[in-house]
Amino acid sequence: MSTKFQVENTSGNARLGRLITPHGVVETPVFMPVGTLASVKGVPQEILEELAIEIVLANTYHLYLRPGIETVRKLGGLHRFMAWPRAILTDSGGFQVFSLNDLRKVNEEGVTFRSHLDGSSHFLSPESAMAAQIGLGADVIMAFDECAEYPAEKARGRQSMELTLRWAERSKRYFEQHKEEVPWGAQKSALATETDVAVGKTAHGQKAPRQGKHQSLFAIVQGGMDPELRRESAQRTIEIGFPGYAIGGLSVGEPRSLTREIVESTVEHLPKDKPRYLMGVGTPEEIVQYANLGIDMMDCVLPTRAARHGLLFTSEGKISIKQARYATDEQPLDSNCGCRVCRRYSRAYLRHLYASNEVLAQVLNTVHNLSFYLDTMRAVRHSIRLGARVQSASADRTEE
Amino acid sequence: MSTKFQVENTSGNARLGRLITPHGVVETPVFMPVGTLASVKGVPQEILEELAIEIVLANTYHLYLRPGIETVRKLGGLHRFMAWPRAILTDSGGFQVFSLNDLRKVNEEGVTFRSHLDGSSHFLSPESAMAAQIGLGADVIMAFDECAEYPAEKARGRQSMELTLRWAERSKRYFEQHKEEVPWGAQKSALATETDVAVGKTAHGQKAPRQGKHQSLFAIVQGGMDPELRRESAQRTIEIGFPGYAIGGLSVGEPRSLTREIVESTVEHLPKDKPRYLMGVGTPEEIVQYANLGIDMMDCVLPTRAARHGLLFTSEGKISIKQARYATDEQPLDSNCGCRVCRRYSRAYLRHLYASNEVLAQVLNTVHNLSFYLDTMRAVRHSIRLGARVQSASADRTEE
Repeated sequence: MSTKFQVENTSGNARLGRLITPHGVVETPVFMPVGTLASVKGVPQEILEELAIEIVLANTYHLYLRPGIETVRKLGGLHRFMAWPRAILTDSGGFQVFSLNDLRKVNEEGVTFRSHLDGSSHFLSPESAMAAQIGLGADVIMAFDECAEYPAEKARGRQSMELTLRWAERSKRYFEQHKEEVPWGAQKSALATETDVAVGKTAHGQKAPRQGKHQSLFAIVQGGMDPELRRESAQRTIEIGFPGYAIGGLSVGEPRSLTREIVESTVEHLPKDKPRYLMGVGTPEEIVQYANLGIDMMDCVLPTRAARHGLLFTSEGKISIKQARYATDEQPLDSNCGCRVCRRYSRAYLRHLYASNEVLAQVLNTVHNLSFYLDTMRAVRHSIRLGARVQSASADRTEE
Repeated sequence: MSTKFQVENTSGNARLGRLITPHGVVETPVFMPVGTLASVKGVPQEILEELAIEIVLANTYHLYLRPGIETVRKLGGLHRFMAWPRAILTDSGGFQVFSLNDLRKVNEEGVTFRSHLDGSSHFLSPESAMAAQIGLGADVIMAFDECAEYPAEKARGRQSMELTLRWAERSKRYFEQHKEEVPWGAQKSALATETDVAVGKTAHGQKAPRQGKHQSLFAIVQGGMDPELRRESAQRTIEIGFPGYAIGGLSVGEPRSLTREIVESTVEHLPKDKPRYLMGVGTPEEIVQYANLGIDMMDCVLPTRAARHGLLFTSEGKISIKQARYATDEQPLDSNCGCRVCRRYSRAYLRHLYASNEVLAQVLNTVHNLSFYLDTMRAVRHSIRLGARVQSASADRTEE
């Protein structure tokens, strides 16, 4: 088996589900924190577990450059490398390479790009992106896609969508031929078991190889900001056939109302029995809205990146902790939050850490923001279970 | 009461003791991690507690600049500010100001110095250093001293020692007149209790004001590298009378054999029933040696600073985790260590985090190094209890 998806309840378009992966069950709708380089920046894995995070996202492009796919593969794959026994999703590298702008060149075969680290030249194709993601061994991996820039002409939107469809087929073909090569897979189990014994202590807390279990390859619907192209992209991607579908190419600079419109007009063409993953969104308010539109999975750097800039989400709105007004504020960051940060530290202390450039600021701010996002999704799931539409906590109500 | 010190056992010159402070008992010999700006860089307080750390050191000079003494005082003192209910020691700012070199000017009254942050001009005297430390409210505070540079002429050593003696008297006088002003002290208790109620959630985990309890002022023995001056400094400081004595002015560039010689020749003149604090040392091997010489308290930035540079102490020697040889090393950092880092992560992962400049590298490296130091001191205490001289773990045996 690979992943399995069960819809357990619905409320309007919103769905309560379970994504069953080789590394545990993920309750959906789910927000997936981003751990670019196999680390959610500043937060030890045991604290991620304490936050009840069931799946994290890692970036293939970044891991391809550092420490390199082969290193991770040799070490048994990402789960074992980063000591994270729960589920992982990797992106295909397509969007990251797309973000390189001047440093890339696309043709039918794939994308030539220069590393943002040292300018060295690299090539990613659907096949090599699959090979990379099989080597990393995430539970859910993504087809290699091309994302149209915004704004784009209709012809460019179509061209990008067609290319993405051809690449989806190539991704699937390569994956089907090579999926047994996953580091924790059936073919590897004899070897992996020996390794488990050999490494002794480092293996603890990490389960034995998952015999006969595979990764799942999700495809990405493109089509720019054109609902008609999005419909066609969805239908033709579904014809190829995948266990899950993502909506890509959004949050690339378009207004939020347009994002929402495109999500809405794409979701209606996606199968009801498969997970739907909206890539790269959003604020706490937005993730609630998208869940209400029928999205099951989301990821975004916002909670972690904002934390590093001292921007904190609370039940009473956003807080910029660097402000002098918090210098003697003895209150917890969010009196409605039960996270380890709000249970212990005052705004005054968090403000001091941030103003003094202390690393602990990043650690604590990130833990809180993730906790806020996780609580938000927990509330969404609870509401769907009760059959009510959930309203977002007011984190987007920016303070005066 | 202020602090109380009980020697429970001895072995040679080494002593097993208990330093009873208004914020808990500290088992000695103790190593005190440095939390310069009210944070042990990168490590949340709950993990410090898990490491069984009973006392941390904070730097008056740094806190005086950021967030400012008045801010901390208003917020109930350092313990409450940093949400650390256990013991704290602050230095007097003297050594920090000494380290500013060109930015300071010493006269009989005190030291004029420029901030390392913005060049602004400040003045610290024995009186203002005491006022600052009373405002911060650490359990143990230090007399304002002057530290001779190394190497120094004998005349300069005497002059510095005499000045330090006069400043010790002034420090004690000011402290005795103002010790009731500590934010958690008897005089403050009515007010503080109201505050406790008012702040609600932020107060939890932090005990009520310690009625009738005071800080303890320790004095610092100086005298450069001259055993004769050290003896005189010790004797005349003891005549003034303090509940604890520190050995200052070491680890300023002199060879380690000289440090040891001076420690040895100073300790013999210090009272047996009072805690002895050796400031600013050392490696794991050195802290064991100093404990064997009869030192009860030590502090050093080494474990935390080395961690930030990827230098890790293990039972098999020092490791520079940045080295490529660890890129695929699945072993834990130290297979004899039971800390949360060694229980979970591999050297390969720690190497990747460091090489990729991930903040988690600093967090995990610091936790491990502190754990190693704490384990080292635990072993020292155990040996003293058994009446055996302890040998250091071999952390100083640098790898090839």
